[in-house]
Amino acid sequence: MTMQEIILKKRYGKALSNEEIEFFINGVVDKSIPDYQTSALLMAIVLNGMNEEEMTTLTIKMAESGEQNDLSYIDGIPVDKHSTGGVGDKCTPLIMPLVATFGVSTVKLSGRGLGFTGGTVDKFESIEGFNVALPISSFPELISNCNMAISGQTPDLAPADKVLYSLRDVTGTIDSIPLIASSIMSKKLAGGAKGIVLDVTCGSGAFMKTIDEAKALSEAMIKIGKLSGREVVAVITDMNQPLGRNVGNVSEMQEVFEILSGNVIEDVVEVVSVLSANMVMLAGKNDGMNMEELINECKLRLTDGRALEKYKDLILSQGGSLNSNGSPVYVDYPNDCMRVNATEDGYITEIKADIIGKASVKLGAGRQVKTDIIDYGAGIGFFVKVGDYVKRGDCLCALYLGNEHINEDDKLFDAAEMITDAFSYSSEKPEDKPVVIEVLK
Amino acid sequence: MTMQEIILKKRYGKALSNEEIEFFINGVVDKSIPDYQTSALLMAIVLNGMNEEEMTTLTIKMAESGEQNDLSYIDGIPVDKHSTGGVGDKCTPLIMPLVATFGVSTVKLSGRGLGFTGGTVDKFESIEGFNVALPISSFPELISNCNMAISGQTPDLAPADKVLYSLRDVTGTIDSIPLIASSIMSKKLAGGAKGIVLDVTCGSGAFMKTIDEAKALSEAMIKIGKLSGREVVAVITDMNQPLGRNVGNVSEMQEVFEILSGNVIEDVVEVVSVLSANMVMLAGKNDGMNMEELINECKLRLTDGRALEKYKDLILSQGGSLNSNGSPVYVDYPNDCMRVNATEDGYITEIKADIIGKASVKLGAGRQVKTDIIDYGAGIGFFVKVGDYVKRGDCLCALYLGNEHINEDDKLFDAAEMITDAFSYSSEKPEDKPVVIEVLK
Repeated sequence: MTMQEIILKKRYGKALSNEEIEFFINGVVDKSIPDYQTSALLMAIVLNGMNEEEMTTLTIKMAESGEQNDLSYIDGIPVDKHSTGGVGDKCTPLIMPLVATFGVSTVKLSGRGLGFTGGTVDKFESIEGFNVALPISSFPELISNCNMAISGQTPDLAPADKVLYSLRDVTGTIDSIPLIASSIMSKKLAGGAKGIVLDVTCGSGAFMKTIDEAKALSEAMIKIGKLSGREVVAVITDMNQPLGRNVGNVSEMQEVFEILSGNVIEDVVEVVSVLSANMVMLAGKNDGMNMEELINECKLRLTDGRALEKYKDLILSQGGSLNSNGSPVYVDYPNDCMRVNATEDGYITEIKADIIGKASVKLGAGRQVKTDIIDYGAGIGFFVKVGDYVKRGDCLCALYLGNEHINEDDKLFDAAEMITDAFSYSSEKPEDKPVVIEVLK
Repeated sequence: MTMQEIILKKRYGKALSNEEIEFFINGVVDKSIPDYQTSALLMAIVLNGMNEEEMTTLTIKMAESGEQNDLSYIDGIPVDKHSTGGVGDKCTPLIMPLVATFGVSTVKLSGRGLGFTGGTVDKFESIEGFNVALPISSFPELISNCNMAISGQTPDLAPADKVLYSLRDVTGTIDSIPLIASSIMSKKLAGGAKGIVLDVTCGSGAFMKTIDEAKALSEAMIKIGKLSGREVVAVITDMNQPLGRNVGNVSEMQEVFEILSGNVIEDVVEVVSVLSANMVMLAGKNDGMNMEELINECKLRLTDGRALEKYKDLILSQGGSLNSNGSPVYVDYPNDCMRVNATEDGYITEIKADIIGKASVKLGAGRQVKTDIIDYGAGIGFFVKVGDYVKRGDCLCALYLGNEHINEDDKLFDAAEMITDAFSYSSEKPEDKPVVIEVLK
């Protein structure tokens, strides 16, 4: 078997055998296959596709290419949640304490943000003292403390995926259902969960721009899950505007605290409740409730203080600081440095989430390259959502900078210009669109 | 402009601009574009194609990537001939002296053989003393001597093509009309000829397996020629059996001498005459004859001694030795070491040229890798052609080895086994197929 034969097979649109996929992944990991052959095969996969069996084998071989997490210390069926990426996505810090109220344990091995998608680890680090540099060995104790553990010290999960992803990034081969699905699912398989709830975002701020694309990706991941013995639920959610009211690390965590304290921010509550209910169901902790009842129960517990108590437990369990009133102490605070105003009268029809994400990176809330240092206080707070009516000059959002950055006016002007372009207006009220578009399993 | 954007454009099936193709070729030559990006783009080109303008720009930019040959010392319109590769292809040593009888000068910058296709330079080196290591600077004198010059000292023609070809070879991206067409034509443009006659072989022993593929490649090269100001004629020829009666260096040159001495070997005479007539026509040396008359005149001159005189001039001009009877002195001689016999009664329907080519390499007549040393005496002499009737046990061909290799029985047995598999038989006489299938311009 040679890599050349494997490339030719895919180039002619044929399905690769399990042995061929294994040969490829082994060669990627041990570097016996040169990058130029790998990138040729990736392009052939992008253009000629992969069937379900190929995708599953690719996923499993990538998952087996490194460490495989053992979650046997978790009581019951271990479940995990994954988002394909969004702007303003603060679901994880809400879901972990919420599902914990049902006795569902969650172990999150999360990454840092890069590009216009924020990272959950960065968000938790907005809390003074919160330690995400925890070794995996400390997880059983954390789980027994409070049913929750989160770490940025990710073990060497699916190293083949890392190699492939960095090559895909520079060879125009990111955008491919089989490659995206196997990349996501390989890390989930290696992560050890038996039940996986996927938040497949869809719209301007997501990888998948259309509902059809999001469905195709969801179906691919569900198939991979089935063929590899995991239960997978895909929740397709709208990302045609940022989720919730804030984008930025501290400001998103403030929003999390607000919601847990009873301030209902509808789209966030809806997405978090549907995702959490599915996790609880997969974990078998639904206690006789059906899905509808479970979603309502989630909405209740999210804002009635039960999830808040668990959230405080999580913060204290990982060394984070709370004020005397129970609110978290943050490493910095958002300073309201500039406002962006409506340029027209009308209903807001769109707040392009990708542009908002890029504007927030411009402000310092995210990283353009891995080595960038984050301004935790930087961010954007929205006073309006799609469907709201504004008059020219009304305030749309506030731009925040951290304490040490408040004089960096250039950032503000650049971001304001971008944000102005992100808004669209119409004289007619746009149709109400649900934030949870469809649930597939 | 980035290479990543260029890859993405082609990945989404869009046409590349002249500037983008130039950026790509410059980056390939100065090595600023890494191989993994180049191979990703090549695969995208293979699967999404290129339009005529893109192909032409690619060809011109590759031709401009190195030295460009100046043929201004040639009287009249310089013409060249190129074959897409075959087995038993001894056309060049016949065409050069034949067209010289019409006053058409030919400058051949030829390569050595690799894989199952023989190299013209190797064939000329079968003649004792024949010097192919001549600098380009000696060409004007050689041309004024005898209208012919051949050298293996090829200048740095189209170096971008060399880089791309070696990458294509290991990334499953050889088989692509735009890439094959631009590769061939870039070297022809850089070679300086204004009129180009292409022998596009078609069948088991050729790159192009079907007539449709051969036509598509021909049309692509004709288009590139038109758009770059060259006149191109493509002659599609059959390569479903080796051309002529011999495969091997000395044995093919013996066949050349036989034909020039009046022994008509039909398929070779037909192909050589059609190619030559087209070259003479493009060079404007047809002296009032139309194509049909010119082909007949070629057939006449090829075997009536006129081309033979020119052939001897060529040999003497480049230092080769002739016997007192005027025949060339060879560096070695084919020793008839084994015969391969028919395994069935019937008409021969196929002599798979690719297998014959590989068997001849096994015997030592060609190189598997560049550093292999050729046995000039090695080869295969055929007693039969497709359409001949044989009885089981009849002799099909003789296997030759050079003087120093006559005891290497393993080679003979391996080759004989391969050759046995190359023959197919039928109780019905196969239809006569012309060796020149179509002429396109």
